[in-house]
Amino acid sequence: MKGTLYGVGLGPGDPELMTLKAHRLISQAEVIAYPAPDSGQSFARSIAAKAIPPDAREIPIVVPMRVDRFPAKEIYDTAAGEIASVLEAGTDVVTLCEGDPFFYGSFMYLFERLSDRFPCEIVPGVTSLTACASRLLRPLTSRTDVLTVLPGPLDDEALRPKIEAAQAIAIMKVGRHLDRLKALLTDMGLLDTAGYVERASLPDQKVFRLADVPAGSAPYFSMILIYKGDEAWTLPPSFSS
Amino acid sequence: MKGTLYGVGLGPGDPELMTLKAHRLISQAEVIAYPAPDSGQSFARSIAAKAIPPDAREIPIVVPMRVDRFPAKEIYDTAAGEIASVLEAGTDVVTLCEGDPFFYGSFMYLFERLSDRFPCEIVPGVTSLTACASRLLRPLTSRTDVLTVLPGPLDDEALRPKIEAAQAIAIMKVGRHLDRLKALLTDMGLLDTAGYVERASLPDQKVFRLADVPAGSAPYFSMILIYKGDEAWTLPPSFSS
Repeated sequence: MKGTLYGVGLGPGDPELMTLKAHRLISQAEVIAYPAPDSGQSFARSIAAKAIPPDAREIPIVVPMRVDRFPAKEIYDTAAGEIASVLEAGTDVVTLCEGDPFFYGSFMYLFERLSDRFPCEIVPGVTSLTACASRLLRPLTSRTDVLTVLPGPLDDEALRPKIEAAQAIAIMKVGRHLDRLKALLTDMGLLDTAGYVERASLPDQKVFRLADVPAGSAPYFSMILIYKGDEAWTLPPSFSS
Repeated sequence: MKGTLYGVGLGPGDPELMTLKAHRLISQAEVIAYPAPDSGQSFARSIAAKAIPPDAREIPIVVPMRVDRFPAKEIYDTAAGEIASVLEAGTDVVTLCEGDPFFYGSFMYLFERLSDRFPCEIVPGVTSLTACASRLLRPLTSRTDVLTVLPGPLDDEALRPKIEAAQAIAIMKVGRHLDRLKALLTDMGLLDTAGYVERASLPDQKVFRLADVPAGSAPYFSMILIYKGDEAWTLPPSFSS
């Protein structure tokens, strides 16, 4: 019997925001796979670290952190091959995924290579979307709101009509697009509705009104949340972090 | 010192999809509040049931299940008053929330009545959005996809351009709008990209290609997921449930 490929969501970063199921599967795992940068620690592994059995076999999938070349086809081909040989031998593989495996995650690069040959189970996780909203202390969406999630790298012409058409908007992967996005939202008259959260739920998280964010570049794990629904939820006048 | 109002996300229904933090807070709670129907069990309470201490004080917020009258202002005024008196006395109140407290949840009705007077902490939870995607075994979004979440009660004229403008679309609260939504998606040529999930992660969950869903009415906790991004992820030809 073949092993099962598990895609396990770990939530936004605080290990306590893992689900009970994620914690159980990791604690019992014989083989664990996870994305890792070419230098430094794997963020996914660091979330799960305390739950990983000391004798588990670990398969780091080392992906260079240069965004333009992501994903590297050969790297995922090789990793999928290694994981396939474990699954063929009848052993399950627990793949650690930041956030949720199917929400803008790199797990899909394994999933698309393996799901036609092996049983797969996805364990959903808390996404950065609601983790960031919790940090802003403002509801993300209510009642009949339309919510749109937009990648920050999209250009202004693509973003503007989509921001206009929704009541709640999340802009993900802000990164080096921070100043441009801030200018766009200022031009649209939405600056005061916009909150900014970086590294939500981690010890070094930052929470700001977007208007208060210093100009420059933001990390990859950052998000802008806009709300213009009927309730006119307002942001606190300032945040301490 | 005043008590803290906790809004605690419970995830989509499987108690194992609660976070470790939700489980801890519920297990240690002195006072627990939750929405409840006027007849039958509270769904939120049923998810958390095994973690609730036997001696915890419980504050059910009984809301009639007639959608048109929701939310009943007086009911939330009364509940907020009862909870405020507990918080004033210095005791925390853990409010149980299906899914995530800030994602289309009723918790906001308490939050808007109490957050200016008492400290609040939101514990994000797994949303139905990614729980349903996990059941369809198809990624929800990837790379630079635009994701739009739409409430099913919106009329076709409002839905159509928003469905056209996104790569990934979730239609929530399908309920009695099932046949109309199915007709709309058929007309838009998207029927074969659409999956349907009802009561995700619960023992009686149902997962279908939308094309295979029998005509009629769907329960409130049902969702349609459409994907038309570049990857052309396809749904399995059929689902066993």
